[in-house]
Parts: sequence; C-alpha cells; structure tokens
Amino acid sequence: MQGLITSSVKLIMFVLLLLGMSGVAHSRRRRLVSSYDAPCNRMTVYYHDILYNGENHANATSSAITQPTELSRSTYFGELVVFDDVVTAEQALSSEPVARAQGFYFYDKKGGFSSWFAFSLVFNSTAYRGTLELVGADVSVDKIRDISVIGGTGDFFMARGIATVSTDSYDGMYYFRLKMDVKLYECYV
Amino acid sequence: MQGLITSSVKLIMFVLLLLGMSGVAHSRRRRLVSSYDAPCNRMTVYYHDILYNGENHANATSSAITQPTELSRSTYFGELVVFDDVVTAEQALSSEPVARAQGFYFYDKKGGFSSWFAFSLVFNSTAYRGTLELVGADVSVDKIRDISVIGGTGDFFMARGIATVSTDSYDGMYYFRLKMDVKLYECYV
Amino acid sequence: MQGLITSSVKLIMFVLLLLGMSGVAHSRRRRLVSSYDAPCNRMTVYYHDILYNGENHANATSSAITQPTELSRSTYFGELVVFDDVVTAEQALSSEPVARAQGFYFYDKKGGFSSWFAFSLVFNSTAYRGTLELVGADVSVDKIRDISVIGGTGDFFMARGIATVSTDSYDGMYYFRLKMDVKLYECYV
Repeated sequence: MQGLITSSVKLIMFVLLLLGMSGVAHSRRRRLVSSYDAPCNRMTVYYHDILYNGENHANATSSAITQPTELSRSTYFGELVVFDDVVTAEQALSSEPVARAQGFYFYDKKGGFSSWFAFSLVFNSTAYRGTLELVGADVSVDKIRDISVIGGTGDFFMARGIATVSTDSYDGMYYFRLKMDVKLYECYV
Repeated sequence: MQGLITSSVKLIMFVLLLLGMSGVAHSRRRRLVSSYDAPCNRMTVYYHDILYNGENHANATSSAITQPTELSRSTYFGELVVFDDVVTAEQALSSEPVARAQGFYFYDKKGGFSSWFAFSLVFNSTAYRGTLELVGADVSVDKIRDISVIGGTGDFFMARGIATVSTDSYDGMYYFRLKMDVKLYECYV
Repeated sequence: MQGLITSSVKLIMFVLLLLGMSGVAHSRRRRLVSSYDAPCNRMTVYYHDILYNGENHANATSSAITQPTELSRSTYFGELVVFDDVVTAEQALSSEPVARAQGFYFYDKKGGFSSWFAFSLVFNSTAYRGTLELVGADVSVDKIRDISVIGGTGDFFMARGIATVSTDSYDGMYYFRLKMDVKLYECYV
C-alpha cells in the first residue's frame, strides 16, 4: 500500500517536472518560473534623463521633439521627449552603467505633471544581454507609481512584471533621475 | 483499493492547489486565474476624446502635437494626439467617471481613417486602484475591432486580455466616444 | 496493484488535460499551447518601409512627422515616422502581401543609428485574421536584434513571443526592408 502511494507521489513529481514548475534545473530546456508573491528576478536601477537644452550637446541623452501645446503650456502638455538614457545600478550618474533606456515619454495632463512612458531597457554587459519592454503612466503627483513590464528578449526572454518608479532627484528642467525597482514575476529560464 | 485511489485524488488536488489553478480562495497568496473562453474580469467603459480646437480650453482633454503630413492630409496621416481623457461607465460624458485614459493615438492611413493607440486606463476609485495598459490598431472602417490589453498594475497586476472597441458617437472633428468592452483572460488575484 | 497505478496514471493524464497542456485538440474550448524551446507558431515576413520624400506620393506608406533635433541631426535623433507599411511573405515588395504593419518608429541615438518601434501586424486574409502587437529597440548596429511580441487579437488571441529582425535591404533614405522572423511561444488556440 505504502509502495503504491509512493508510486503515485513519484508520478505526480514527474508531472510537476513535465510542467516545468519544479525547482530542479533542466539542461537546455527553457521553462517558466513564476511566483506572484515574490519576484523571480528583481533589480533596482536608476534612470538618468539629461534633456537637451541647446547647449549641453555633449552630455544630453534626450531631446524634446514636440513643444507643449497651447492647451496647457505650464504643465508641458504635449511635449514629447525621445531618449537614449543611461541606467546605472547606483544613484550617481557617474556610477557603473548597467543598461541604456531607449524610448520616449510625453506630458499629458492639464492640472499637474503627468507623463506616459514606453521604452526598452537594453542590457549589453557580462551580467545580462537582452531587453525588457516597459510601458505605463508616470503620474508624478503620486510619490510611488507602478508601470508594466510587458515583455523581454535575450536573458529576459518573454519576461513580465512590474516596475515601481519614484522620482529620486531632479535639477531644474534638464535633469531628473528615476529610481526603478524592476520586479519580474514570470521568468523563462 | 478505494482508499488508495482517494489518496491519489487528494494528492492531485493538492498539486492543483500548489499550481494555483483551483477555484479555492487563498488568503494572502496571489494566483493566476485564467480561462480563455470566459473572461475572469470584464467591464464596458466609454472613452471620451475632447480635442483642443483653440477655443475649448476648459473642456479639452487632448491635443494634437503634430499636424497631418502632405502625404495624406485628408485622412490626417501623421497627426498625433496626446490625451488624458475621461472614461465613464455610462455613455454620457457627464456620467460618473471610472478612470482616466492617458496615452496617445495617431492617424496612419492614406486611403481611409485608421489610427494606432497606446494608453493606460488609470483607475483611482473605491472600486479599483491600478492601471491597465492597452495598445493596438483602431481600424475605423471596421465597425468592431480588437486591441490588446498587455499588462496592468495594482488591482490589475499583470492582467492580460482583449478590448473590443467601437465608435459609439462623434461630433465633428473635436469629440468622439469609443465604447470599450475590456475582457481580461488572465487575472492574478 | 497494476490496476491502481494505471488509475493514477489516468488521473494524472486527466489533470494534464484540465491544465490544457496535453496535445489533444479540444472542440470549441480555447487553451494555451506553450513551449519555450520551439515556437507554437512561426512565420518569416518582410516589412517594406517607403518613406514619403515629397515626390513619391503614390508609393509612400510612411511619413516623418517630426524632424531630427539639433542634438544629433546626423543620426536623425528625434525623427519620428508613422507608417502603414506592406508586409509580404517573400522578399520582393511586389510579392503577395500577407499583412499591414501599422505603427511608428523614431531614431533615438547620438552615436549611431538606433530606433525604437511599436506597431501592429494587421492580418486580414484567408490564412489569418487578427493582429500581433510588437515593441522594441531596433539597434541597427547589431546585425540581428530581437523585439517583443506582447499581445495579439483574433487568430493571434493573447499571443506572445519574439521577433528577430534584420535589415534585409535599403535604398538610400527612402526605402528599407526588414526581415522579421516572428516566433510565438504562447498560442491560445
């Protein structure tokens, strides 16, 4: 009897293996590791936006391609900025870059500052090669806000999750730093 | 014998529980509820776009940030509109707002009206807090068209699905209303 | 004894069926077919971008809606192009179209050519009806680069995967062709 139950247990373990949900590493076969309570991968990075102001040609990594509209100039409504920004693991702009952030944001609110982002984190280092795609509303009046990680490539093949964003620092109109806590809940490894 | 089969059944039920596929509610642990035939969450909402026309400063919630190009002025090819639009549960613009839609669309067709949307539905009410991210082609010649729900945050953590869109009403160039039937097929609750 | 093990096996097969992971076709019920090693659907298509140059009104299918900024004119930094491009199964522009690509790209790099794409592949043929949504960085210095397939509708309901992109041909500033190897790893059929 005991032996039969053991057999059943073994069979069920085998099913779990087949389903790729077990903790055992497979050679060569990719599988989905997901947990919706604790991330399967997590990293905190800093995004540095240095906006072109007509003079900082050497340092600038982003540029407005449209001007705010008359609807609401004071909140930059309609200003669209394209960027290829540095992303670092530490706060300092001068610290080790871990990725580039390529994409755009625009301001879209009349009664306050609010923007909408879509970009890729492009990793090309010994630690990671690949991309993560992120989109979402960056409602700056909220101290902390979430945007969606909707896909990825390379080491982040098909990844999904959430990035929690907060404004970490800013210097006038031409520099701001976002802290991004990137939490992946679906990893295909 | 019967007892052993029962044991197997229990074990398999336990596996199902582990996999988070069972119908039993868990306290505190998030799990994926998915059905690809019937949505795990569904809502019909109305999106109101009030385009800035130079005079409706108080009411307008969207603004063109580029002009149609010479390639096809008659179909507004290349006009890009940024919005922070009201979303209601009922048809009337004056009815209870349930969310804001923050994002953009642009016209991209020579031989007819067709646009491409990317935006977040931003919920901030007692019913829901969080966002849904949507992207897709809005081919207006089709009476009904589908766009993709590609992610979400907060109460819509990691959600995916389809939004079926139809033009519900329009008034000249400066107002239109879309009916959006948002159907989520992957809910993480 | 043997009979009991057989029963267990049957139960486990039943579990697999329930989980929609088995290879058996269901009538009418949609299920997730996924394999992260071999695509559940794959197609190679060619994307043809014919940019409006002021004279090719009849042939052009895309148009710049912003000009490169002073930050980096030589690499077209900030030029944003909206398109409704032809997608074919064969290399030749004149070959059978299989889809339209509706969306946009912009150049976002100072020290080289790099762009960021977001678009829908819109299928409307006897083979397929529906859309696929794609976003990602197209870093042209890399011979081959991956972008993310983040969702879909119709025959591509909720699909996800990777598109491997390479520049297949170009003719000056006003025509280029991308080869896109679209690999879906999550198909809901």
